[in-house]
Amino acid sequence: MSDARFDVLGIGNAMVDVLAHSSDEFLAQNGIAKGAMSLIDAERATQLYARMEPAVEISGGSAANTMVGVAGFGGRAAYIGKVKADQLGEVFAHDIRAAGVAFDGEMAHEGEPTGRCLILVTPDAQRSMNTFLGASATLTPADVKGDDVAASEITYLEGYLFDPAPAREAFYKAAGIAHVAGRKVALTLSDPFCVDRYRDEFRHLIDTEVDILFANEAELKSLYQTSSFDEGMQTLMRHCPVAALTRSEHGSVVLWHDEVHVISAKPVKKVVDTTGAGDSYAAGFLYGFARGADAQTCGHLGSLAAAEVISHFGARPEADLKALAGKAGLL
Amino acid sequence: MSDARFDVLGIGNAMVDVLAHSSDEFLAQNGIAKGAMSLIDAERATQLYARMEPAVEISGGSAANTMVGVAGFGGRAAYIGKVKADQLGEVFAHDIRAAGVAFDGEMAHEGEPTGRCLILVTPDAQRSMNTFLGASATLTPADVKGDDVAASEITYLEGYLFDPAPAREAFYKAAGIAHVAGRKVALTLSDPFCVDRYRDEFRHLIDTEVDILFANEAELKSLYQTSSFDEGMQTLMRHCPVAALTRSEHGSVVLWHDEVHVISAKPVKKVVDTTGAGDSYAAGFLYGFARGADAQTCGHLGSLAAAEVISHFGARPEADLKALAGKAGLL
Repeated sequence: MSDARFDVLGIGNAMVDVLAHSSDEFLAQNGIAKGAMSLIDAERATQLYARMEPAVEISGGSAANTMVGVAGFGGRAAYIGKVKADQLGEVFAHDIRAAGVAFDGEMAHEGEPTGRCLILVTPDAQRSMNTFLGASATLTPADVKGDDVAASEITYLEGYLFDPAPAREAFYKAAGIAHVAGRKVALTLSDPFCVDRYRDEFRHLIDTEVDILFANEAELKSLYQTSSFDEGMQTLMRHCPVAALTRSEHGSVVLWHDEVHVISAKPVKKVVDTTGAGDSYAAGFLYGFARGADAQTCGHLGSLAAAEVISHFGARPEADLKALAGKAGLL
Repeated sequence: MSDARFDVLGIGNAMVDVLAHSSDEFLAQNGIAKGAMSLIDAERATQLYARMEPAVEISGGSAANTMVGVAGFGGRAAYIGKVKADQLGEVFAHDIRAAGVAFDGEMAHEGEPTGRCLILVTPDAQRSMNTFLGASATLTPADVKGDDVAASEITYLEGYLFDPAPAREAFYKAAGIAHVAGRKVALTLSDPFCVDRYRDEFRHLIDTEVDILFANEAELKSLYQTSSFDEGMQTLMRHCPVAALTRSEHGSVVLWHDEVHVISAKPVKKVVDTTGAGDSYAAGFLYGFARGADAQTCGHLGSLAAAEVISHFGARPEADLKALAGKAGLL
């Protein structure tokens, strides 16, 4: 183990998920893009919530979910994200700390409430997300503690951070500090529509700051505006040293310098809710990477964590990932 | 169907449940009575929450869960209980309305926050509850709308209401109105320790106001201070016209005037979480009673709803109870 205090530090939009079952008709009637993340304002959040079925509140946030996964593997994880000092903010802080993730940023005492993500899960286990950023959009570079970034093997950034401008600046600050300290920077593209909104900025960042990229097929295609996964992959190899490209039930492809590794998905009995599949995959991969694992092992740790999280309702792992990985001979 | 607007109106402590997995060691270390409900103050709630595993927030409250069950059977249900106008209060109001239950009481704008129940679920699926009453303890007789009570076939009262004094007064107001309107009053004893705290008051109430009583074995024994279920049952028959006595996996015994009906439990594949079993049983029974069903049918509707709720995490039914009851030939 190196001199680092943390294996992975995640920076992202701190959210509480509000999960409810839904139907395709409901999505259509309410103009919700299936399987994607849409940003909504406070008014739309209130309106949509009033129409939703009874729901369950579970702490979420993409990078936060990933950090909980890293801790679940036995990794040392930290998280930076903004909540307000309200009830949902307390829930978020409790849950991430109780999962073993260091989280000690200051809560906002004014302004918008803690962010929430209204997630509609259709019978096919797809999740459609409607995010009211709230306090999470007030993250600024001042929230990024340089000491923590410099003491983390990997700083992991959420693509969703591109939506609030001050968070983008926080991102650059973190990436700068990480590299000066000789650490790695990882990025997840998060969502094809998010890539669409900020394509040039994402490309520039990948070229200049990103050591490890996470993307699914749709995000990769959007990034390089191609309809061919293979073409996107070939382009990406010229721009980023390491990448994990997730392909749902078809597993993932790991680009590892000049090598390409095809990783199978871990079969699950029943897919209950795909929320958090990508987040958990990243957790396994990052944990492996921080501990010096090879490309195959990183990929399979990702598959294992993704399989766990899609087999139940909610985006954070419930089983003991460390034990599962040990049983699978991956640790 | 009669002239009533509601089949059942429930009055109880409005709560949001905070559910987490736990161990027997944790219960012992923190002095928590296993399987029971303990009242805790704000300080203890904060302390205990900080020690708990990552949790899930789901609307709860015993009588509220029951009303959601009544609505799930296709019944017309209403609910009276006090929340504050804070985030958890909004969650409670959203969830019960989204389940089809009429809930239009005024929220508190001052004082304690919305009540919550910290529920620790051990690997044996038992739940140990730690209740911070918060705003729910501020329910007063003024919150009981006489028109709604008079327009409900059955007014259902939660034994937990005996803890906050103004809620006890609300209870008497409701019972009085119901009987003058020619309606029925039902009561659940809720918890053996609660019965212990208010034994004389409970006995008096049953003698004077209660038409339908719900109790489990421990509560019945506590009520009449006997170690014999049979003795408790014989005593109860002299004091209350109809009663449903639940016995976990042994099913229930329905006392129906001078008849005794033994009802089997509905087998479940795996008991995941017993939270809400009694609440759901009451939902099935009350729905059946309000619609004029016989003793056997009321009991089996209760068994069916209880079986549904213990087969998943959380205290409110997730499946379509009406469809299940139809399939079982009970409707």
